[in-house]
Amino acid sequence: MIKPIFCIFSFTLFIFTCNAAVQDFCVADLTGPQGPAGYSCKSPSNVTANDFVFTGFRKAGNTTNLIKAAVSPAFDAQFPGVNGLGVSIARLDLAPAGVIPMHTHPGASEILIVVQGSIVTGFVSNANQVFVKKLLKGDVMVFPQGLLHFQINGGGSTAVAFASFSSANPGLQITDFALFGNTLPSMLVEKTTFLDDAQVKKLKAVLGGSG
Amino acid sequence: MIKPIFCIFSFTLFIFTCNAAVQDFCVADLTGPQGPAGYSCKSPSNVTANDFVFTGFRKAGNTTNLIKAAVSPAFDAQFPGVNGLGVSIARLDLAPAGVIPMHTHPGASEILIVVQGSIVTGFVSNANQVFVKKLLKGDVMVFPQGLLHFQINGGGSTAVAFASFSSANPGLQITDFALFGNTLPSMLVEKTTFLDDAQVKKLKAVLGGSG
Amino acid sequence: MIKPIFCIFSFTLFIFTCNAAVQDFCVADLTGPQGPAGYSCKSPSNVTANDFVFTGFRKAGNTTNLIKAAVSPAFDAQFPGVNGLGVSIARLDLAPAGVIPMHTHPGASEILIVVQGSIVTGFVSNANQVFVKKLLKGDVMVFPQGLLHFQINGGGSTAVAFASFSSANPGLQITDFALFGNTLPSMLVEKTTFLDDAQVKKLKAVLGGSG
Amino acid sequence: MIKPIFCIFSFTLFIFTCNAAVQDFCVADLTGPQGPAGYSCKSPSNVTANDFVFTGFRKAGNTTNLIKAAVSPAFDAQFPGVNGLGVSIARLDLAPAGVIPMHTHPGASEILIVVQGSIVTGFVSNANQVFVKKLLKGDVMVFPQGLLHFQINGGGSTAVAFASFSSANPGLQITDFALFGNTLPSMLVEKTTFLDDAQVKKLKAVLGGSG
Amino acid sequence: MIKPIFCIFSFTLFIFTCNAAVQDFCVADLTGPQGPAGYSCKSPSNVTANDFVFTGFRKAGNTTNLIKAAVSPAFDAQFPGVNGLGVSIARLDLAPAGVIPMHTHPGASEILIVVQGSIVTGFVSNANQVFVKKLLKGDVMVFPQGLLHFQINGGGSTAVAFASFSSANPGLQITDFALFGNTLPSMLVEKTTFLDDAQVKKLKAVLGGSG
Amino acid sequence: MIKPIFCIFSFTLFIFTCNAAVQDFCVADLTGPQGPAGYSCKSPSNVTANDFVFTGFRKAGNTTNLIKAAVSPAFDAQFPGVNGLGVSIARLDLAPAGVIPMHTHPGASEILIVVQGSIVTGFVSNANQVFVKKLLKGDVMVFPQGLLHFQINGGGSTAVAFASFSSANPGLQITDFALFGNTLPSMLVEKTTFLDDAQVKKLKAVLGGSG
Repeated sequence: MIKPIFCIFSFTLFIFTCNAAVQDFCVADLTGPQGPAGYSCKSPSNVTANDFVFTGFRKAGNTTNLIKAAVSPAFDAQFPGVNGLGVSIARLDLAPAGVIPMHTHPGASEILIVVQGSIVTGFVSNANQVFVKKLLKGDVMVFPQGLLHFQINGGGSTAVAFASFSSANPGLQITDFALFGNTLPSMLVEKTTFLDDAQVKKLKAVLGGSG
Repeated sequence: MIKPIFCIFSFTLFIFTCNAAVQDFCVADLTGPQGPAGYSCKSPSNVTANDFVFTGFRKAGNTTNLIKAAVSPAFDAQFPGVNGLGVSIARLDLAPAGVIPMHTHPGASEILIVVQGSIVTGFVSNANQVFVKKLLKGDVMVFPQGLLHFQINGGGSTAVAFASFSSANPGLQITDFALFGNTLPSMLVEKTTFLDDAQVKKLKAVLGGSG
Repeated sequence: MIKPIFCIFSFTLFIFTCNAAVQDFCVADLTGPQGPAGYSCKSPSNVTANDFVFTGFRKAGNTTNLIKAAVSPAFDAQFPGVNGLGVSIARLDLAPAGVIPMHTHPGASEILIVVQGSIVTGFVSNANQVFVKKLLKGDVMVFPQGLLHFQINGGGSTAVAFASFSSANPGLQITDFALFGNTLPSMLVEKTTFLDDAQVKKLKAVLGGSG
Repeated sequence: MIKPIFCIFSFTLFIFTCNAAVQDFCVADLTGPQGPAGYSCKSPSNVTANDFVFTGFRKAGNTTNLIKAAVSPAFDAQFPGVNGLGVSIARLDLAPAGVIPMHTHPGASEILIVVQGSIVTGFVSNANQVFVKKLLKGDVMVFPQGLLHFQINGGGSTAVAFASFSSANPGLQITDFALFGNTLPSMLVEKTTFLDDAQVKKLKAVLGGSG
Repeated sequence: MIKPIFCIFSFTLFIFTCNAAVQDFCVADLTGPQGPAGYSCKSPSNVTANDFVFTGFRKAGNTTNLIKAAVSPAFDAQFPGVNGLGVSIARLDLAPAGVIPMHTHPGASEILIVVQGSIVTGFVSNANQVFVKKLLKGDVMVFPQGLLHFQINGGGSTAVAFASFSSANPGLQITDFALFGNTLPSMLVEKTTFLDDAQVKKLKAVLGGSG
Repeated sequence: MIKPIFCIFSFTLFIFTCNAAVQDFCVADLTGPQGPAGYSCKSPSNVTANDFVFTGFRKAGNTTNLIKAAVSPAFDAQFPGVNGLGVSIARLDLAPAGVIPMHTHPGASEILIVVQGSIVTGFVSNANQVFVKKLLKGDVMVFPQGLLHFQINGGGSTAVAFASFSSANPGLQITDFALFGNTLPSMLVEKTTFLDDAQVKKLKAVLGGSG
C-alpha cells in the first residue's frame, strides 16, 4: 500500500526539476539576444500551452497572385515555441497551375505531405540527378538539405501540402530572387550564370532587382 | 554570348560530383550493416525518385479497434529515403473517442498538424507542467523530444493528423506497453510505479505482458 | 639551448588565446539570458577552480522517506561549471527496499556506477524488450537516452550509485509525477493509460495532483 | 628520479589505447559500406602518414576552358583521410576573366583564402542581401552553409585561392548545371524560374541537358 | 472498463517498433565495419541485458607499479553497449603518491567523482589558466574536452575515482607517451618542445621510444 | 510571359525571410552575452560585406623571434563573421628553422595548406602512432581534433601556410606553455610528466611560469 509521499518525494526531486524547468524547451524571446543556436528563452513562468500551438494555418494562403501559390511559414520567428527544438513547418497552397519556384533550404531537410489535390515536385542532387514525382493526396516526399527543389500544381483543383523541416529555422533561398531580386549587378549575374543580358534585365525589372 | 562549355566545365566538376553522389543522401540499405548514424547506403546507381516518395498514407489507418486509433509510421525502416536526413513522419487516424495513448519519442521532437477534425493533445514537461490544447483543422502543436504526450479525439468525426519528427528514427515508447506489455515482473512494476497489484495484473493480462 | 622567448612567443599567441579564453568552457551565469545551447557564460575573469568542482555529494542524500531513496543532481543549474560541456552527474542513495521510480531522461544517455551495496536496475527499449540486471559494487550499466528505467535496492544495506549523463541538463521525467502529480485531468489520464479511475484518483491524492 | 616504468605504465594504458586506435580518425575505405556519417574506416594497420596528406594541388588546375577556371576538390572521395573529420578543401584557379559560376555547398560553410591575384566574390543571404567584396592576396571570406555564391577574377593575372569546408563532403550544386545540365524538362525549368524558353533551350544545348 | 486490446493495439504499433528495434541502441559488433560514428551494430536478436552491463570494475586496478596508479577503461572497445550512446567511463586507482600523468581526451569532456580517499586534480585552459583542487570523497570535478589535466594522490591511503565521458570513445593522449614513447625523432621533440636532448633521451629510454 | 509579380510574390515570402534574416549567419557581437554555441549575434541591420571578410593576412606575421615563426589567427574573436559557422582560419609564417611548437586544438580538426616553401609537420595519434610528412608548396595535411601536432621549416626559405579549422573557435593549447608558462607548481609538473626539476625550472624561467 502506498502512503502519502508527495512532500518527501517531491522534496528531493521537484526542486531540481524546477531548476531544470527551462531547458526542455526554450520558447523564443524574440526581443532578446540571439546566438548561433537560436533565440534566447522566454521566461518559463510566462510560458503557456499557447506557446506550443500555431493556429496560423486555419485559413488557406492567398493564391490569387501570379504564381498562384502561397507559402505560409511557421519557423521560429513566427512560431516561437519551436525555437531550439529542431523542427518547424510551413503550409503550401497551390491553385491550379500554381508554382513554388526553384528554391533551397540551406538549414534543413524537408518532408512534404500532400493533403489536398496533387503536386508535381522534385529535387536535383549534387550529382545532378533529377528526382521528380507526381504526388497524390496522402503522399510524402523528402528533400535532402540544401538541394534545389520546386512544387507545381498541374491538376485542376487547389493543392495543399505541409512541409516540415529538421530545423526551427530552415532558411529559404529562392533562386529567382537571389539572382534577380536584389542589388547584385546584372553583369555579375550574367557572368556567373551565363544568362543573356536581356533575360537578366527583364527578370530584374519584374522582381524588383537593381544594378 | 556563350559557347559550348559543357565538356570542359564538366570535366573539372562533374567527375568529382559523381564521386560525391552518394553523400547528399543515403537511402537505407535495409539489409546492410547499421551503425549509430543509421543504415548503410543503398548504391546510388540503384536510387530512383521512388526512394524519396512514400505512398503508404493514401488510405486511412484502421481505427476499428478498441483505442479507435491508428498510427502509421514512415520512419527509416518503412521509408528508407529518410535515412540520415534527420526527418520522418507518421499518420494518425483517430475515430470519435479515439486515443493515442501516453507515449514518448526518445529520439526526436515532434511537430503535429491536424488536417481533419479536431484533436485534444498535450505534453508534460520535465518540471511537471501540463500543456494541453484542443487543435482544430490546420492547427499545429510542437512536442519537445522525449516528453510524455498523447492525442485524443473528443469530436464527433474522425480526426486525421500528420506528425513529423526531427530524426529518421524518433523511436516510440508507449507507457502502457512499457509497463504492462512485456516481461517486466509485476512486482518490479508495482515497486517502481506505486500501482496496485490488481491494476498491474489486469493491464498485463490485456496487453500481453507476463511476470 | 633555449633563450628567453616568452615575451615574443607570447606576443603572437598569448594575446589571441586571451581572446579565446571564454570558449573552452562557459560556466553558467544563472542570472543571464538562456538559449537552446544552455546558459550564458559567466565572465572568465570571475571564474575560479571552484566553478569546476561540486562538493554537494559529500553527504548521503536523505533516504528517510517513503521511497527510501534520494536523488541529488549536479546538473547545470546546480553545478554551473558543466554548462555547455555535455556532461553532468547525480548521486543516488537507496536504503534497503529503496526505489528510484520509473523515469526517463529526455535529454541524455546515462551511465551508472554502483559504489556501495547492490542495485537492481534496468530499462525498457522502444521495441519493448526488458533489460534488467542486479549490479554489485563496481558494476556499471548504461541506459540509452529517453528510455524508461528504474533502480531498486533489494539488498540489506544502503546502496549508493553515481549516474553520469551525456548532457549538462539531461532532464528527468518521473512517470508517476507526470501522470498523477500535476493538473492533468483524471479523465485524460485514464483515457491515455487505461488505468482505473480509482487507481488514478488514489495516486493523484498522494502525489498532489489535481483534476 | 625516474625509474623505468615503460612496461608497467604501458601495460595499463597502451593496451586500451590500441583498442581505441581506430577512432581518432577513420580514413575512408572507398570500397566499403557507406553510412550517413561517411565511409567505413580503412583498417588502422594499413594507415600511414600518406593517408593524411593530399598532394594533388602541386599543379595549377587547367583553366584553358571557356569559364577560364578550375576547381580541384580534396573532399573525402579524393582525400580519404578527411573522412569523418569535418573538414575538406579545394583549390580554385581563375585565369583573367575566369569565373566559378553561381553555386552552393549544401553540406558545409566555406572559408576562402586568396593566395595569388585578386578575386571578386560574394554570396546572397536568405534575406536576399548581397555581400560582395574584392579580395586581394591574403584576404579571407566566409560563406555560410548552403547560400548561393560565386567567384570572378576581374584582374589581369591568374588568381589562386583555397576554399576550406566544415565537412568532409560539403557537396556542390552549380545552379546552371542543376537547371540546364540534366534531364529536367524545359517546361518545368521555365515554370519554376520564369526564364524564357529560348534561354532555357539555349543553355540546355550548351550544358548538355535534355528535355 | 478496459477490454482486451492487445492484439489490435499491437498490430499497429508493435510491428513498427520491431522494425525500429535496432535504433535506440547499437551494441558494438567489434568485428564489423566501423564508421565515423562508431562500430556497426550487433544484431538485436543477440542483444541481452549483459550487453549493457560492465563488471570489469569489481576489482581495483593494479597500482603496484612505478606511477602507483591504474586506469581501467570501459570505452566502446571494452564495453560494446556504449557504442553510439555518447557516454563511457573509466576507473582510476591511485595508491599513496600515485599519479595519472598529464593527458588529454581529444574526444570528450570528463566528469570525475572521487569515491575513496582524496585526489589533487586539475586542468589547464586554452588561455593558460590553471584550475587545481584537492577533491575529497564525494567531490566532483569537470574537465572540458581536449584540455591537459592530471590526477595525483597526495594522501596516505588509496584513492579511487570514476571518470565519465561525453563520448563512447573519448580517446586518451598521454603527453609523455606522445613525446617520448614512440618513434618521433629526438631532434623533432627537442625542436618542438625546447626540452634538452639529455632529458628527451632519458625519457625515451624509459618509455620505450626510439629515434 | 511573365508579369510583374514582385510585390505579390514577395508579400508572402519576403516578409518571413526578413524575419529569418538573422539566422543564416550570426556575426559576433563581441560585447554581448556569450553562450556555449558562441557569441550573440550583431544586429542584422548593421551587417555589411566587411563582416564576412578578414584582411589581416595581407602582411606576413613577424618571425623575427626565437622560434622564427608566427601564428596569426582569424577565429571568432578576431573575425566575428565566422561566429556560429563552424569554420575559422589562421596564417602560419615560418622562417628557415622556424617552429610552431607542439600543440593541440581541443575544439576542432585542422586542414593545412602550404602556399610557400616547405614544412615538416605531423601528429601523434591516441594509439601513439606518429604521422610525419614533409609538405611542399600546394600540399595539404589534415590533423584530427585534439591530437598533438607541430610544424617545422627545415628549408632554406620562409614557409607560409594556412590552417583552417572545423570550428569558429578551435582553441589552442601549446604544450610548453601549459606545462611551464603558468602558475602550475613545478612539483606538480614534475610528478605528472617525469621531467627533471632542473628542466622544469629552466623552462619556467624562460616561459614566464611561476611556482
